[in-house]
Amino acid sequence: MTYCVGLKLDKGILFMSDTRTNAGVDNISVFRKMVTWEVPGERVITIMTAGNLATTQAVISTLDERGKAPEDRAPSLLEEPTMFRVAKLVGETLRDVIKSQTDTGQTADAFGATIIVGGQIAGSEPRLFMIYAEGNFIEASDDTPFFQIGETKYGRPILVRAYDPAMSFEDATKLLLVSFDSTIKANLSVDLPLDYMAYETDSFAIAQQGRITVDNPHFKQISNGWGDALRAAFASLPDFKF
Amino acid sequence: MTYCVGLKLDKGILFMSDTRTNAGVDNISVFRKMVTWEVPGERVITIMTAGNLATTQAVISTLDERGKAPEDRAPSLLEEPTMFRVAKLVGETLRDVIKSQTDTGQTADAFGATIIVGGQIAGSEPRLFMIYAEGNFIEASDDTPFFQIGETKYGRPILVRAYDPAMSFEDATKLLLVSFDSTIKANLSVDLPLDYMAYETDSFAIAQQGRITVDNPHFKQISNGWGDALRAAFASLPDFKF
Repeated sequence: MTYCVGLKLDKGILFMSDTRTNAGVDNISVFRKMVTWEVPGERVITIMTAGNLATTQAVISTLDERGKAPEDRAPSLLEEPTMFRVAKLVGETLRDVIKSQTDTGQTADAFGATIIVGGQIAGSEPRLFMIYAEGNFIEASDDTPFFQIGETKYGRPILVRAYDPAMSFEDATKLLLVSFDSTIKANLSVDLPLDYMAYETDSFAIAQQGRITVDNPHFKQISNGWGDALRAAFASLPDFKF
Repeated sequence: MTYCVGLKLDKGILFMSDTRTNAGVDNISVFRKMVTWEVPGERVITIMTAGNLATTQAVISTLDERGKAPEDRAPSLLEEPTMFRVAKLVGETLRDVIKSQTDTGQTADAFGATIIVGGQIAGSEPRLFMIYAEGNFIEASDDTPFFQIGETKYGRPILVRAYDPAMSFEDATKLLLVSFDSTIKANLSVDLPLDYMAYETDSFAIAQQGRITVDNPHFKQISNGWGDALRAAFASLPDFKF
Protein backbone atom coordinates (compact mmCIF):
# COMPACT_ATOMS: atom_id res chain seq x y z
CA MET A 1 0.00 0.00 0.00
CA THR A 2 1.00 3.64 0.30
CA TYR A 3 -0.25 6.77 2.00
CA CYS A 4 -0.12 10.22 0.39
CA VAL A 5 -1.92 13.44 1.33
CA GLY A 6 -2.23 16.72 -0.55
CA LEU A 7 -3.53 19.57 1.61
CA LYS A 8 -4.72 22.96 0.33
CA LEU A 9 -3.98 25.81 2.74
CA ASP A 10 -4.53 29.55 2.59
CA LYS A 11 -0.76 29.84 2.21
CA GLY A 12 -0.37 27.24 -0.54
CA ILE A 13 -0.27 23.46 -0.88
CA LEU A 14 1.44 20.87 1.31
CA PHE A 15 2.27 17.37 0.05
CA MET A 16 3.40 14.34 2.03
CA SER A 17 3.98 10.74 0.96
CA ASP A 18 5.40 7.63 2.55
CA THR A 19 7.95 5.42 0.78
CA ARG A 20 6.92 1.85 1.47
CA THR A 21 5.87 -0.44 -1.34
CA ASN A 22 4.94 -4.03 -0.83
CA ALA A 23 3.99 -7.08 -2.84
CA GLY A 24 2.61 -9.21 -0.07
CA VAL A 25 4.03 -8.69 3.42
CA ASP A 26 7.31 -10.44 2.71
CA ASN A 27 8.48 -8.26 -0.16
CA ILE A 28 8.80 -4.64 0.92
CA SER A 29 10.94 -1.87 -0.54
CA VAL A 30 11.52 1.85 -0.29
CA PHE A 31 10.44 3.91 -3.30
CA ARG A 32 9.90 7.62 -3.62
CA LYS A 33 6.29 8.39 -4.53
CA MET A 34 6.57 12.17 -4.87
CA VAL A 35 8.05 13.99 -7.85
CA THR A 36 8.25 17.75 -8.36
CA TRP A 37 8.88 19.67 -11.58
CA GLU A 38 9.95 23.26 -11.02
CA VAL A 39 10.48 26.08 -13.53
CA PRO A 40 11.48 28.89 -11.17
CA GLY A 41 9.26 31.94 -11.55
CA GLU A 42 6.86 30.13 -13.88
CA ARG A 43 5.52 26.82 -12.55
CA VAL A 44 5.79 24.19 -9.82
CA ILE A 45 4.01 20.85 -10.29
CA THR A 46 4.05 18.01 -7.76
CA ILE A 47 2.72 14.50 -8.35
CA MET A 48 2.21 11.74 -5.76
CA THR A 49 1.20 8.21 -6.72
CA ALA A 50 -0.43 5.17 -5.10
CA GLY A 51 -1.15 1.77 -6.59
CA ASN A 52 0.71 -0.59 -8.90
CA LEU A 53 4.34 0.54 -8.83
CA ALA A 54 5.08 -0.51 -12.42
CA THR A 55 2.13 1.62 -13.56
CA THR A 56 3.05 4.68 -11.51
CA GLN A 57 6.73 4.54 -12.46
CA ALA A 58 5.79 4.26 -16.14
CA VAL A 59 3.51 7.30 -15.77
CA ILE A 60 6.22 9.38 -14.09
CA SER A 61 8.88 8.30 -16.61
CA THR A 62 6.62 9.09 -19.55
CA LEU A 63 5.78 12.52 -18.17
CA ASP A 64 9.42 13.17 -17.30
CA GLU A 65 10.81 12.17 -20.70
CA ARG A 66 8.42 14.49 -22.41
CA GLY A 67 9.58 17.30 -20.14
CA LYS A 68 13.23 16.73 -20.88
CA ALA A 69 13.05 16.89 -24.66
CA PRO A 70 10.06 19.13 -25.25
CA GLU A 71 10.87 19.96 -28.88
CA ASP A 72 9.79 16.52 -30.11
CA ARG A 73 7.68 15.16 -27.26
CA ALA A 74 4.57 17.25 -26.90
CA PRO A 75 2.44 17.63 -24.89
CA SER A 76 4.65 18.25 -21.88
CA LEU A 77 4.00 19.03 -18.21
CA LEU A 78 6.33 21.97 -18.64
CA GLU A 79 4.37 23.47 -21.54
CA GLU A 80 0.72 22.98 -20.59
CA PRO A 81 -0.80 26.43 -20.04
CA THR A 82 -2.92 25.60 -16.96
CA MET A 83 -3.05 23.15 -14.04
CA PHE A 84 -6.32 21.79 -15.45
CA ARG A 85 -4.49 20.84 -18.64
CA VAL A 86 -1.69 19.32 -16.55
CA ALA A 87 -4.22 17.17 -14.68
CA LYS A 88 -5.76 16.14 -18.01
CA LEU A 89 -2.35 15.17 -19.39
CA VAL A 90 -1.48 13.13 -16.29
CA GLY A 91 -4.89 11.42 -16.42
CA GLU A 92 -4.48 10.54 -20.09
CA THR A 93 -0.97 9.24 -19.48
CA LEU A 94 -2.20 7.08 -16.58
CA ARG A 95 -5.06 5.70 -18.67
CA ASP A 96 -2.74 4.96 -21.61
CA VAL A 97 -0.23 3.16 -19.39
CA ILE A 98 -2.95 0.99 -17.83
CA LYS A 99 -4.47 0.30 -21.24
CA SER A 100 -1.13 -0.82 -22.68
CA GLN A 101 -0.76 -3.29 -19.80
CA THR A 102 -4.26 -4.68 -19.97
CA ASP A 103 -3.96 -5.34 -23.72
CA THR A 104 -2.38 -8.64 -22.72
CA GLY A 105 -5.70 -9.76 -21.28
CA GLN A 106 -5.10 -8.97 -17.60
CA THR A 107 -7.82 -7.07 -15.76
CA ALA A 108 -7.34 -3.33 -15.26
CA ASP A 109 -7.71 -3.62 -11.47
CA ALA A 110 -4.32 -5.27 -11.07
CA PHE A 111 -2.60 -2.33 -12.77
CA GLY A 112 -4.68 0.40 -11.10
CA ALA A 113 -3.25 3.54 -9.57
CA THR A 114 -4.42 6.85 -8.13
CA ILE A 115 -2.55 10.11 -8.42
CA ILE A 116 -2.58 13.48 -6.63
CA VAL A 117 -1.39 16.42 -8.76
CA GLY A 118 -1.00 19.94 -7.44
CA GLY A 119 0.87 23.13 -8.09
CA GLN A 120 0.62 26.49 -9.77
CA ILE A 121 1.34 27.92 -13.20
CA ALA A 122 1.89 31.65 -13.62
CA GLY A 123 -1.36 33.40 -14.50
CA SER A 124 -3.69 31.27 -12.37
CA GLU A 125 -4.30 30.10 -8.82
CA PRO A 126 -2.71 27.03 -7.20
CA ARG A 127 -4.84 23.95 -7.82
CA LEU A 128 -4.97 20.42 -6.41
CA PHE A 129 -6.44 17.38 -8.22
CA MET A 130 -7.00 13.70 -7.57
CA ILE A 131 -6.80 11.48 -10.65
CA TYR A 132 -8.44 8.07 -10.93
CA ALA A 133 -7.22 5.01 -12.81
CA GLU A 134 -9.80 5.80 -15.51
CA GLY A 135 -7.98 9.07 -16.21
CA ASN A 136 -10.76 11.37 -14.98
CA PHE A 137 -10.22 13.58 -11.96
CA ILE A 138 -11.70 15.83 -9.27
CA GLU A 139 -10.44 19.09 -7.81
CA ALA A 140 -10.04 20.12 -4.16
CA SER A 141 -12.33 22.92 -2.98
CA ASP A 142 -13.10 24.79 0.23
CA ASP A 143 -15.51 22.00 1.15
CA THR A 144 -12.99 19.23 0.48
CA PRO A 145 -9.61 20.88 0.88
CA PHE A 146 -7.48 17.74 0.97
CA PHE A 147 -7.05 14.47 -0.88
CA GLN A 148 -5.71 11.19 0.46
CA ILE A 149 -4.69 8.18 -1.64
CA GLY A 150 -3.61 4.67 -0.67
CA GLU A 151 -4.22 3.50 2.91
CA THR A 152 -6.43 6.48 3.78
CA LYS A 153 -8.68 5.41 6.63
CA TYR A 154 -6.52 5.26 9.76
CA GLY A 155 -5.22 8.79 9.29
CA ARG A 156 -8.48 10.41 8.25
CA PRO A 157 -10.20 11.16 11.60
CA ILE A 158 -7.45 13.54 12.77
CA LEU A 159 -7.45 15.36 9.41
CA VAL A 160 -11.23 15.75 9.53
CA ARG A 161 -11.07 17.15 13.06
CA ALA A 162 -7.93 19.27 13.20
CA TYR A 163 -7.41 20.65 9.68
CA ASP A 164 -7.70 24.42 9.43
CA PRO A 165 -6.97 26.25 6.14
CA ALA A 166 -5.30 29.09 8.06
CA MET A 167 -2.58 26.76 9.41
CA SER A 168 1.08 27.52 8.82
CA PHE A 169 3.07 25.03 6.73
CA GLU A 170 4.84 23.89 9.90
CA ASP A 171 1.58 23.26 11.77
CA ALA A 172 0.12 21.50 8.75
CA THR A 173 3.25 19.33 8.52
CA LYS A 174 2.78 18.47 12.20
CA LEU A 175 -0.83 17.53 11.44
CA LEU A 176 0.25 15.27 8.58
CA LEU A 177 2.90 13.67 10.77
CA VAL A 178 0.19 12.75 13.29
CA SER A 179 -2.00 11.38 10.50
CA PHE A 180 0.91 9.37 9.06
CA ASP A 181 1.96 8.17 12.51
CA SER A 182 -1.57 6.87 13.23
CA THR A 183 -1.46 5.01 9.92
CA ILE A 184 2.02 3.59 10.47
CA LYS A 185 1.10 2.41 14.01
CA ALA A 186 -1.97 0.54 12.75
CA ASN A 187 -0.71 -1.33 9.69
CA LEU A 188 2.39 -2.65 7.96
CA SER A 189 1.88 -1.25 4.46
CA VAL A 190 2.84 2.37 5.22
CA ASP A 191 6.18 3.37 6.74
CA LEU A 192 8.95 5.93 7.11
CA PRO A 193 10.81 7.69 5.60
CA LEU A 194 8.25 10.35 4.63
CA ASP A 195 8.77 12.89 1.85
CA TYR A 196 7.24 16.36 2.08
CA MET A 197 7.04 19.43 -0.11
CA ALA A 198 5.49 22.80 0.71
CA TYR A 199 4.50 25.15 -2.08
CA GLU A 200 3.72 28.79 -1.23
CA THR A 201 1.16 30.54 -3.43
CA ASP A 202 2.64 32.83 -6.11
CA SER A 203 6.21 31.88 -5.20
CA PHE A 204 6.68 29.62 -8.26
CA ALA A 205 9.45 27.88 -6.34
CA ILE A 206 9.68 25.05 -3.81
CA ALA A 207 9.29 26.54 -0.32
CA GLN A 208 10.33 23.50 1.69
CA GLN A 209 11.20 20.01 0.64
CA GLY A 210 12.71 17.15 2.60
CA ARG A 211 12.62 13.63 3.91
CA ILE A 212 11.69 12.60 7.45
CA THR A 213 13.55 9.47 8.46
CA VAL A 214 13.10 7.23 11.46
CA ASP A 215 15.81 9.21 13.30
CA ASN A 216 14.10 12.58 12.86
CA PRO A 217 13.82 14.07 16.37
CA HIS A 218 10.63 16.04 15.52
CA PHE A 219 8.90 12.93 14.29
CA LYS A 220 9.99 10.97 17.36
CA GLN A 221 8.68 13.69 19.68
CA ILE A 222 5.38 13.88 17.83
CA SER A 223 4.95 10.12 17.61
CA ASN A 224 5.78 9.56 21.28
CA GLY A 225 3.87 12.64 22.41
CA TRP A 226 0.73 11.82 20.47
CA GLY A 227 -0.07 8.74 22.55
CA ASP A 228 0.11 10.77 25.77
CA ALA A 229 -1.76 13.70 24.22
CA LEU A 230 -4.54 11.40 23.01
CA ARG A 231 -4.88 9.78 26.43
CA ALA A 232 -5.01 13.23 28.05
CA ALA A 233 -7.62 14.34 25.49
CA PHE A 234 -9.61 11.22 26.23
CA ALA A 235 -9.41 11.82 29.99
CA SER A 236 -10.60 15.41 29.48
CA LEU A 237 -13.91 14.24 27.98
CA PRO A 238 -16.92 14.12 30.30
CA ASP A 239 -17.34 10.70 31.92
CA PHE A 240 -19.86 8.29 30.48
CA LYS A 241 -22.46 6.97 32.95
CA PHE A 242 -24.63 3.94 32.31
CA MET B 1 -20.86 -2.00 6.30
CA THR B 2 -20.96 -2.27 10.08
CA TYR B 3 -18.68 -1.62 13.01
CA CYS B 4 -18.49 -3.87 16.09
CA VAL B 5 -15.87 -4.08 18.83
CA GLY B 6 -15.38 -6.66 21.57
CA LEU B 7 -12.99 -5.51 24.30
CA LYS B 8 -11.48 -7.71 27.02
CA LEU B 9 -10.95 -5.89 30.30
CA ASP B 10 -9.69 -6.97 33.71
CA LYS B 11 -13.28 -6.57 34.89
CA GLY B 12 -14.91 -8.55 32.07
CA ILE B 13 -15.89 -8.02 28.43
CA LEU B 14 -17.48 -4.99 26.77
CA PHE B 15 -19.32 -5.25 23.46
CA MET B 16 -20.50 -2.46 21.17
CA SER B 17 -22.09 -2.56 17.72
CA ASP B 18 -23.67 -0.06 15.37
CA THR B 19 -26.99 -0.72 13.65
CA ARG B 20 -26.59 0.50 10.08
CA THR B 21 -26.85 -1.91 7.19
CA ASN B 22 -26.59 -0.85 3.61
CA ALA B 23 -26.87 -2.30 0.13
CA GLY B 24 -25.29 0.52 -1.79
CA VAL B 25 -25.63 4.02 -0.36
CA ASP B 26 -29.29 4.44 -1.30
CA ASN B 27 -30.65 1.47 0.61
CA ILE B 28 -29.90 1.79 4.31
CA SER B 29 -31.69 0.25 7.27
CA VAL B 30 -31.40 -0.20 11.00
CA PHE B 31 -30.73 -3.75 12.20
CA ARG B 32 -29.53 -4.96 15.54
CA LYS B 33 -26.20 -6.78 15.19
CA MET B 34 -25.76 -7.86 18.81
CA VAL B 35 -27.54 -10.79 20.45
CA THR B 36 -27.07 -12.06 24.01
CA TRP B 37 -28.10 -15.38 25.48
CA GLU B 38 -28.24 -15.43 29.28
CA VAL B 39 -28.78 -18.30 31.72
CA PRO B 40 -28.52 -16.45 35.03
CA GLY B 41 -25.90 -17.94 37.30
CA GLU B 42 -24.61 -20.29 34.58
CA ARG B 43 -23.69 -18.58 31.29
CA VAL B 44 -23.79 -15.37 29.28
CA ILE B 45 -22.94 -15.48 25.57
CA THR B 46 -22.91 -12.44 23.27
CA ILE B 47 -22.56 -12.52 19.49
CA MET B 48 -21.97 -9.57 17.13
CA THR B 49 -22.02 -9.92 13.36
CA ALA B 50 -20.70 -8.08 10.30
CA GLY B 51 -21.13 -8.92 6.64
CA ASN B 52 -23.98 -10.19 4.50
CA LEU B 53 -27.16 -9.59 6.53
CA ALA B 54 -29.00 -12.63 5.15
CA THR B 55 -26.08 -14.81 6.23
CA THR B 56 -25.75 -13.32 9.72
CA GLN B 57 -29.50 -13.41 10.38
CA ALA B 58 -29.63 -17.05 9.28
CA VAL B 59 -26.75 -17.86 11.65
CA ILE B 60 -28.43 -16.12 14.59
CA SER B 61 -31.82 -17.70 13.87
CA THR B 62 -30.30 -21.16 13.55
CA LEU B 63 -28.44 -20.78 16.83
CA ASP B 64 -31.50 -19.32 18.53
CA GLU B 65 -33.93 -22.03 17.37
CA ARG B 66 -31.61 -24.70 18.72
CA GLY B 67 -31.53 -22.91 22.05
CA LYS B 68 -35.30 -22.72 22.32
CA ALA B 69 -36.05 -26.41 21.81
CA PRO B 70 -32.91 -28.08 23.09
CA GLU B 71 -34.48 -31.53 23.47
CA ASP B 72 -34.50 -32.18 19.74
CA ARG B 73 -32.06 -29.63 18.39
CA ALA B 74 -28.57 -30.42 19.64
CA PRO B 75 -25.98 -29.03 19.78
CA SER B 76 -27.13 -25.81 21.40
CA LEU B 77 -25.38 -22.64 22.58
CA LEU B 78 -27.09 -23.18 25.91
CA GLU B 79 -25.67 -26.68 26.37
CA GLU B 80 -22.10 -26.45 25.11
CA PRO B 81 -19.77 -27.00 28.12
CA THR B 82 -17.13 -24.35 27.25
CA MET B 83 -16.77 -21.07 25.34
CA PHE B 84 -14.35 -22.81 22.98
CA ARG B 85 -17.11 -25.26 22.04
CA VAL B 86 -19.52 -22.33 21.65
CA ALA B 87 -17.10 -20.62 19.23
CA LYS B 88 -16.73 -23.90 17.33
CA LEU B 89 -20.52 -24.26 17.06
CA VAL B 90 -20.95 -20.68 15.84
CA GLY B 91 -18.15 -21.16 13.30
CA GLU B 92 -19.67 -24.39 11.99
CA THR B 93 -23.10 -22.76 11.75
CA LEU B 94 -21.64 -19.80 9.84
CA ARG B 95 -19.78 -22.08 7.45
CA ASP B 96 -22.89 -24.24 6.89
CA VAL B 97 -25.06 -21.19 6.16
CA ILE B 98 -22.55 -19.81 3.64
CA LYS B 99 -22.16 -23.23 2.05
CA SER B 100 -25.91 -23.66 1.62
CA GLN B 101 -26.06 -20.31 -0.18
CA THR B 102 -23.09 -20.91 -2.45
CA ASP B 103 -24.49 -24.28 -3.57
CA THR B 104 -26.44 -22.25 -6.15
CA GLY B 105 -23.16 -21.33 -7.85
CA GLN B 106 -22.59 -17.89 -6.34
CA THR B 107 -19.13 -17.15 -4.94
CA ALA B 108 -18.65 -17.40 -1.18
CA ASP B 109 -17.38 -13.80 -0.95
CA ALA B 110 -20.81 -12.33 -1.60
CA PHE B 111 -22.26 -14.20 1.39
CA GLY B 112 -19.29 -13.67 3.69
CA ALA B 113 -19.55 -12.59 7.32
CA THR B 114 -17.36 -12.18 10.39
CA ILE B 115 -18.52 -12.77 13.94
CA ILE B 116 -17.33 -11.81 17.42
CA VAL B 117 -18.39 -14.22 20.20
CA GLY B 118 -17.66 -13.65 23.85
CA GLY B 119 -18.91 -14.56 27.29
CA GLN B 120 -18.42 -16.93 30.15
CA ILE B 121 -19.70 -20.37 31.14
CA ALA B 122 -19.55 -21.47 34.79
CA GLY B 123 -16.33 -23.38 35.48
CA SER B 124 -14.04 -21.41 33.19
CA GLU B 125 -12.76 -17.89 32.46
CA PRO B 126 -14.50 -15.33 30.21
CA ARG B 127 -13.29 -15.71 26.62
CA LEU B 128 -13.55 -13.64 23.45
CA PHE B 129 -13.28 -15.00 19.90
CA MET B 130 -13.37 -13.69 16.34
CA ILE B 131 -14.81 -16.09 13.79
CA TYR B 132 -14.06 -15.97 10.07
CA ALA B 133 -16.35 -16.86 7.17
CA GLU B 134 -14.46 -20.16 6.81
CA GLY B 135 -15.67 -21.14 10.29
CA ASN B 136 -12.25 -21.05 11.96
CA PHE B 137 -11.50 -18.55 14.70
CA ILE B 138 -8.93 -16.79 16.89
CA GLU B 139 -9.05 -15.84 20.56
CA ALA B 140 -8.25 -12.51 22.23
CA SER B 141 -5.19 -12.50 24.49
CA ASP B 142 -3.24 -10.01 26.59
CA ASP B 143 -1.31 -9.05 23.44
CA THR B 144 -4.44 -8.55 21.35
CA PRO B 145 -7.16 -7.78 23.86
CA PHE B 146 -9.83 -6.55 21.44
CA PHE B 147 -11.42 -7.51 18.13
CA GLN B 148 -13.01 -5.23 15.57
CA ILE B 149 -15.14 -6.36 12.64
CA GLY B 150 -16.64 -4.42 9.72
CA GLU B 151 -15.38 -0.90 9.02
CA THR B 152 -12.46 -1.20 11.43
CA LYS B 153 -9.81 1.26 10.28
CA TYR B 154 -11.07 4.74 11.20
CA GLY B 155 -11.67 3.80 14.82
CA ARG B 156 -8.51 1.75 15.35
CA PRO B 157 -5.86 4.41 16.17
CA ILE B 158 -7.64 5.60 19.33
CA LEU B 159 -8.14 2.00 20.53
CA VAL B 160 -4.46 1.21 19.93
CA ARG B 161 -3.39 4.30 21.88
CA ALA B 162 -5.88 4.65 24.74
CA TYR B 163 -6.98 1.11 25.63
CA ASP B 164 -5.99 -0.02 29.09
CA PRO B 165 -7.16 -3.38 30.49
CA ALA B 166 -7.64 -1.83 33.95
CA MET B 167 -10.34 0.56 32.64
CA SER B 168 -13.78 0.60 34.23
CA PHE B 169 -16.72 -0.39 32.04
CA GLU B 170 -17.79 3.25 31.91
CA ASP B 171 -14.36 4.47 30.76
CA ALA B 172 -14.16 1.66 28.24
CA THR B 173 -17.61 2.60 26.94
CA LYS B 174 -16.41 6.18 26.58
CA LEU B 175 -13.39 4.89 24.64
CA LEU B 176 -15.61 2.88 22.32
CA LEU B 177 -17.90 5.89 21.81
CA VAL B 178 -14.88 7.90 20.65
CA SER B 179 -13.84 5.07 18.33
CA PHE B 180 -17.37 4.77 16.92
CA ASP B 181 -17.73 8.54 16.60
CA SER B 182 -14.49 8.75 14.58
CA THR B 183 -15.84 6.04 12.30
CA ILE B 184 -19.27 7.63 11.92
CA LYS B 185 -17.74 11.04 11.15
CA ALA B 186 -15.57 9.62 8.36
CA ASN B 187 -17.96 7.37 6.41
CA LEU B 188 -21.60 6.66 5.67
CA SER B 189 -21.72 2.94 6.32
CA VAL B 190 -21.67 3.07 10.14
CA ASP B 191 -24.22 5.01 12.20
CA LEU B 192 -26.17 5.40 15.41
CA PRO B 193 -27.96 3.98 17.32
CA LEU B 194 -25.25 1.92 19.03
CA ASP B 195 -25.91 -1.16 21.16
CA TYR B 196 -23.68 -2.03 24.09
CA MET B 197 -23.42 -4.82 26.62
CA ALA B 198 -21.02 -5.12 29.55
CA TYR B 199 -20.33 -8.49 31.10
CA GLU B 200 -18.62 -8.66 34.48
CA THR B 201 -16.40 -11.67 35.14
CA ASP B 202 -18.02 -14.40 37.30
CA SER B 203 -21.36 -12.55 37.46
CA PHE B 204 -23.08 -14.87 34.94
CA ALA B 205 -25.55 -12.06 34.30
CA ILE B 206 -25.69 -9.01 32.05
CA ALA B 207 -24.12 -6.09 33.95
CA GLN B 208 -25.19 -3.29 31.64
CA GLN B 209 -27.05 -3.34 28.36
CA GLY B 210 -28.55 -0.53 26.34
CA ARG B 211 -28.86 1.47 23.18
CA ILE B 212 -27.27 4.86 22.52
CA THR B 213 -29.43 6.90 20.19
CA VAL B 214 -28.70 10.15 18.40
CA ASP B 215 -30.35 12.04 21.30
CA ASN B 216 -28.14 10.52 23.99
CA PRO B 217 -26.65 13.47 25.93
CA HIS B 218 -23.46 11.54 26.84
CA PHE B 219 -22.79 10.69 23.22
CA LYS B 220 -23.42 14.28 22.14
CA GLN B 221 -21.00 15.60 24.76
CA ILE B 222 -18.35 13.08 23.79
CA SER B 223 -18.79 13.61 20.07
CA ASN B 224 -18.73 17.40 20.33
CA GLY B 225 -16.01 17.41 22.97
CA TRP B 226 -13.72 15.06 21.06
CA GLY B 227 -13.08 17.54 18.26
CA ASP B 228 -11.99 20.20 20.77
CA ALA B 229 -10.02 17.68 22.82
CA LEU B 230 -8.19 16.45 19.71
CA ARG B 231 -7.33 19.97 18.63
CA ALA B 232 -6.05 20.72 22.14
CA ALA B 233 -4.02 17.50 22.11
CA PHE B 234 -2.61 18.47 18.72
CA ALA B 235 -1.71 21.96 19.96
CA SER B 236 0.04 20.43 22.99
CA LEU B 237 2.53 18.57 20.77
CA PRO B 238 5.94 20.15 20.23
CA ASP B 239 6.01 22.37 17.11
CA PHE B 240 7.49 20.99 13.94
CA LYS B 241 10.28 23.09 12.39
CA PHE B 242 11.53 22.68 8.85
